[in-house]
Amino acid sequence: MQVYEAPIRDMRFNLEELHEDDGFGNLEGFEDFDEDMTGAILEEANKLCRDVLLPLNWPGDQQGCRIENGVVRTPDGFQEAYKQFCEGGWAGLVVDQKWGGQGAPHALAKMVEEMSCSTNLSFGLYPGLTGGAMVSLEAYGSEDQKNFYMPKMANGEWSGTMCLTEPHCGTDLGMLRTKAEPQEDGSCLITGNKIFISAGDHDLAENIIHLVLARLPDAPKGVKGISMFLVPKFLPKDDGSLGDRNPVTATAIEHKMGLKASATCQMSFDGAKGWLVGPENRGLEAMFAMMNTERVAVGIQGLGMGEIAYQSSVYYAKDRLQGRSLSGVKNPDGPADPLIVHPDIRRMLMTMRAYNEGCRSVSAWVSRALDAEHASPEPEARARAKDFVALMTPVVKALFTDLGHESTHMAIQLHGGHGYIQETGIEQFARDARIAQIYEGANGIQALDLVGRKLPDRMGRNLRSFFHPVSQFIEDHANDEHIGKIVAGLQQSFGALQLSTGHIAQKGLKDPEEAAAAATDYLRLLGFVAMGYCFAKSAKLAKQKLAEGTGEEQFYKSKLTTAQFFFDRLLPPATAQFMAIKSGKASMMDMPADAF
Amino acid sequence: MQVYEAPIRDMRFNLEELHEDDGFGNLEGFEDFDEDMTGAILEEANKLCRDVLLPLNWPGDQQGCRIENGVVRTPDGFQEAYKQFCEGGWAGLVVDQKWGGQGAPHALAKMVEEMSCSTNLSFGLYPGLTGGAMVSLEAYGSEDQKNFYMPKMANGEWSGTMCLTEPHCGTDLGMLRTKAEPQEDGSCLITGNKIFISAGDHDLAENIIHLVLARLPDAPKGVKGISMFLVPKFLPKDDGSLGDRNPVTATAIEHKMGLKASATCQMSFDGAKGWLVGPENRGLEAMFAMMNTERVAVGIQGLGMGEIAYQSSVYYAKDRLQGRSLSGVKNPDGPADPLIVHPDIRRMLMTMRAYNEGCRSVSAWVSRALDAEHASPEPEARARAKDFVALMTPVVKALFTDLGHESTHMAIQLHGGHGYIQETGIEQFARDARIAQIYEGANGIQALDLVGRKLPDRMGRNLRSFFHPVSQFIEDHANDEHIGKIVAGLQQSFGALQLSTGHIAQKGLKDPEEAAAAATDYLRLLGFVAMGYCFAKSAKLAKQKLAEGTGEEQFYKSKLTTAQFFFDRLLPPATAQFMAIKSGKASMMDMPADAF
Repeated sequence: MQVYEAPIRDMRFNLEELHEDDGFGNLEGFEDFDEDMTGAILEEANKLCRDVLLPLNWPGDQQGCRIENGVVRTPDGFQEAYKQFCEGGWAGLVVDQKWGGQGAPHALAKMVEEMSCSTNLSFGLYPGLTGGAMVSLEAYGSEDQKNFYMPKMANGEWSGTMCLTEPHCGTDLGMLRTKAEPQEDGSCLITGNKIFISAGDHDLAENIIHLVLARLPDAPKGVKGISMFLVPKFLPKDDGSLGDRNPVTATAIEHKMGLKASATCQMSFDGAKGWLVGPENRGLEAMFAMMNTERVAVGIQGLGMGEIAYQSSVYYAKDRLQGRSLSGVKNPDGPADPLIVHPDIRRMLMTMRAYNEGCRSVSAWVSRALDAEHASPEPEARARAKDFVALMTPVVKALFTDLGHESTHMAIQLHGGHGYIQETGIEQFARDARIAQIYEGANGIQALDLVGRKLPDRMGRNLRSFFHPVSQFIEDHANDEHIGKIVAGLQQSFGALQLSTGHIAQKGLKDPEEAAAAATDYLRLLGFVAMGYCFAKSAKLAKQKLAEGTGEEQFYKSKLTTAQFFFDRLLPPATAQFMAIKSGKASMMDMPADAF
Repeated sequence: MQVYEAPIRDMRFNLEELHEDDGFGNLEGFEDFDEDMTGAILEEANKLCRDVLLPLNWPGDQQGCRIENGVVRTPDGFQEAYKQFCEGGWAGLVVDQKWGGQGAPHALAKMVEEMSCSTNLSFGLYPGLTGGAMVSLEAYGSEDQKNFYMPKMANGEWSGTMCLTEPHCGTDLGMLRTKAEPQEDGSCLITGNKIFISAGDHDLAENIIHLVLARLPDAPKGVKGISMFLVPKFLPKDDGSLGDRNPVTATAIEHKMGLKASATCQMSFDGAKGWLVGPENRGLEAMFAMMNTERVAVGIQGLGMGEIAYQSSVYYAKDRLQGRSLSGVKNPDGPADPLIVHPDIRRMLMTMRAYNEGCRSVSAWVSRALDAEHASPEPEARARAKDFVALMTPVVKALFTDLGHESTHMAIQLHGGHGYIQETGIEQFARDARIAQIYEGANGIQALDLVGRKLPDRMGRNLRSFFHPVSQFIEDHANDEHIGKIVAGLQQSFGALQLSTGHIAQKGLKDPEEAAAAATDYLRLLGFVAMGYCFAKSAKLAKQKLAEGTGEEQFYKSKLTTAQFFFDRLLPPATAQFMAIKSGKASMMDMPADAF
């Protein structure tokens, strides 16, 4: 059974308690979002996600999307839910108030996103893509474009897409072929085929604003000849009402492993009218403005899936009676004890829990940096935040989606045969979560981004935004009587990370394949150290609160146990990936291609 | 694209070269199965699997099974394929010749099973269940039962099932409720509902022989009151022709995540006529005779899925052009280089390859012991083989299925967005492979079997059958100039395994939850040491063959590279699971159930 209640207490722990000393200072412009407002928003979001989106999740998977007379239809109930979503102001939660948005901080909005990802990942993609498109548009659009499009996107009336992939090119966008022919009126006619376009067509919003990568005539070859165009489904009239249908159509809906209620479309642009966004031939840059935000958002998808996998598993583990506890009967009146008494069931529950809490803390840290990058009054703090976001974006994307997917499979395993049956709703989690490791840059590409771009950038400056607070924390707490053992574990992993960084810097300078060979293991190691740091800080805080006697004993005690579990069971194998990194590229690259 | 060619060279390496010195001696009764015969069987099996079963694999997934007028229909083409399968004598490959089987050794038959699992896991379940049922019947059936049923099952005319699970009990069979009422004619009437029954009904064989667990009146509570019954779909007349339809019916086909061409049925027994197999109240024992063989067979399913995931990935990695090699353009005439030039793609290919080759070697070792247990002329070798099979059965089941599933997900990842699309056929592998970690005892149960039964059994005697050859090999080769570095890696992991064993023996004696808390990590560590031992032996052999100059340079060089990759990248994180084991149960069990 799919079960969900937003983990609001843990969200508030991360928002309001854990990251107070993160070095980004007080932020300006979010004065409205005090603790009362934050609490109210989280409660309202929980209600919407739990009561409206979750009940549509499994039916949406079973029904899927369909094309009727050239128009994509979403599953039953999605239109009404989208209406509620927009009426609640959720479509523009982080959008600037001048465009009609709420202007909420990312740190808060990511918690809300986590809830919608948990309860209906397919649904969340529709407004999610609009959000991404707004980021690009706000950064690269002309004033006219922004004034015209942003308000209607911020309230969800119109939605957005990003159209990059073509059948022969996904990661390697340099090969893309879609053409843009300039017209005398300043517009361009766009012609080409795109695939894998999320929310490419649907019946939720009255218009869809496609951001499309295409080549102008005589553009340079490769990625330096790509421009970005805004192509509306319906050409709007000057007053914002809908005019002619633009010849951009969904020719098919992909048959996917999961995420079936999200329409992933093959799109055909047959001389569709569009307008350049940003400078000519700098479309990739404009698209990447959106891509980075989207990558963090995709990481949150992994966390969201991990959370509902955990909660549904807890429900089943308490409900299902099977076997007897090894330490003596726990449910003497029943025919058997609940699953939760068994150590191997605990292993899975605690692993999921630790992944979720660890990722949530890292996410809150990174999201606060996303806000600080723009809203910190101190230039130094802004710069530090920017470095930190640059470093952590690929980590959040790849690590969270890998761990979220692992959690969905633990949920299946914990449910036994019932986890493999569709009606239980558990296997859907695994099928839905799987795509997050692939889209917005496959996780291997994230790892290359980390070691190939983010590490060497400005002599390693990005990395210092992370290494500095971690080493400072270790130094400050190495002899702490309360959390000394945990800090020792962190220190060991951090040491392995430092050595790995040195290995990559040294070997990768001479031979980029050496850095690439280390990339995936390195990303995971760095991610686990980041989680470890957050858990160590959490443990310190929990000890303090327990000593103070806050009346929330169970919450803080559980936080301590989860932290201890992370250091006992999850961090050591991740640390050992240093051995793999150190072994270098030889055994990975030695085999001639035809020997495979 | 689903691509397959049986890895016959590697299979023969394992059958004919690697395990010569395994201490089980020469086996008797398999004289017909010399190298010529083995080669011919593998070639024929490859043709059947590649040319007949594989083309039905993806269509079978899309079409699935259906119930028409109370009868289960398999997908198009399955009936004809099953006919070919039976005509080729594959249904009775390991069955004694006195029942009309081929009497082939398990070591060979497991290679054939691997092929059918690679090419059509759903199809393979139908004869697979029959094979399991024959094992129980041969061990526990009366002479009359065997004479009557075995020949028709060995040639595939009739098929078999095992009916254990009920809605409220899977692992915990003590709770089962299906009743058997003795009749005056010596038969019993069976009444109850079973779920998750593989091949419970279908249109491939003319009759289905169900082996059903049920309770006789006044039977003791729990697992000691369960008996096994033989319940045919059609009650056979004395001459073997079909008589009345027995009231056992498939009331529904489960809607599963994958394995859709295998009919997993809800079965209703409404006073169906059945006959006791084996002694009263010892049904679990009779079922376990089958279960152990089945568990090794399920392990092979994991390996089979891993192999086709690897091969399909290799095909795509050579075919798909995307990006340029970091060490210089490799395909200057094309718009990009093939994926296989990229280190992170290599990482996935080499990991899958190492998993498959490692598991295949372990499987060949265990399968040879399965044969030696019965066919070795020396009592000591038989006893050693039996101990080894007992120890390794849960390891083969759980480790192979875990790694096979990991490989199918690497295949998806390597295919990028195309891996998530159904038409490519890749995501089917992951959905199909997933069940193998669950059925025939979920992998957590395998781990408990290992630490709770197989380790302590007769003061650890099972374990010695494994520890002795490994420590002997390490001792003999510690200073070997050719493979010394590999042996050092093996020694380190073996040391961690020994310490882990000591930890479990010591702590688990006082507190069984301590052993259970270590179980899953321990199974994986032991499995990786077993693979490491096989790779170290393989490397030694490869070095020898290369020095001799056998003319198969590429095969032996690739074996060396794969072994090196295993020791560089895969063994160290597995070894680090010792740290998790050592940490004990506290952080796993501390949290009160209501804190979850």
